[in-house]
Amino acid sequence: MRARDLVREFPVVGLDTPAVEAARLLAGQNLPGLIVTDRDGLPVTVLPGTQVLRLAVPQYCQDDPALARMIDEAHADLFLRQLGDRSVADCLPAPGRRKDLAVVSPAATVLEIAALMARTRTPLVAVVEGGRLLGAVTLDDLLDRVLAS
Amino acid sequence: MRARDLVREFPVVGLDTPAVEAARLLAGQNLPGLIVTDRDGLPVTVLPGTQVLRLAVPQYCQDDPALARMIDEAHADLFLRQLGDRSVADCLPAPGRRKDLAVVSPAATVLEIAALMARTRTPLVAVVEGGRLLGAVTLDDLLDRVLAS
Repeated sequence: MRARDLVREFPVVGLDTPAVEAARLLAGQNLPGLIVTDRDGLPVTVLPGTQVLRLAVPQYCQDDPALARMIDEAHADLFLRQLGDRSVADCLPAPGRRKDLAVVSPAATVLEIAALMARTRTPLVAVVEGGRLLGAVTLDDLLDRVLAS
Repeated sequence: MRARDLVREFPVVGLDTPAVEAARLLAGQNLPGLIVTDRDGLPVTVLPGTQVLRLAVPQYCQDDPALARMIDEAHADLFLRQLGDRSVADCLPAPGRRKDLAVVSPAATVLEIAALMARTRTPLVAVVEGGRLLGAVTLDDLLDRVLAS
């Protein structure tokens, strides 16, 4: 079993997609994460769902839970509004801080895919061949197939 | 909006649950992760899906993708068998290496929950009150409710 046997179409967002729209896509389709592509349609980064959330949560709240606790309920409910009209690119961590890219070739085995998901903590990997994005393999799809066989 | 408004029942696994059964539960119900409980039914750890995978992938494959690539397809397909009859407890990282626990009280605001998910990279948090596990809040549920309001 190889990535080519497990790949399926997967929605992407661009670097200039509004971050709030990226969050809507994630939630609306119950996706495990998002593939962010450049102008050539190639993955710039693959974000697990929790890291999409990270785009919207102020850094000081992530660093210190006590500070998040001091924001009252009414304001806490609105935390996604802090995204304003910022784009995905505006919210991404600096390139140096990004983890290695969750991207494989169609020939990758299930063990390679699983190892990459475990290391990057990303429940999906993008599948790229010859400069073209073919889609993604999700953790659910991988486990379903491996457990069934 | 508070954790008590978002919590729902969530399946748990025990420390002595076979790790392969934990993987089956995750895949079978398309869960974003697993809550591992002790004998009192309280969360010992909350594992994102990718870290359940980590239980089964040999450490040398996680550290070096080139080594994962050297395992041939037929053997790679069987990587989950390496779990054998090991339990969840056998596969968990040592307590010192675990991230802080993704557990909140029913009074936690959505911002607190989001900050905790972002920091622990875990797309679910367990909700505990008075020594009792009430259930979990998932990233999907959180985003759905925050985006709807």
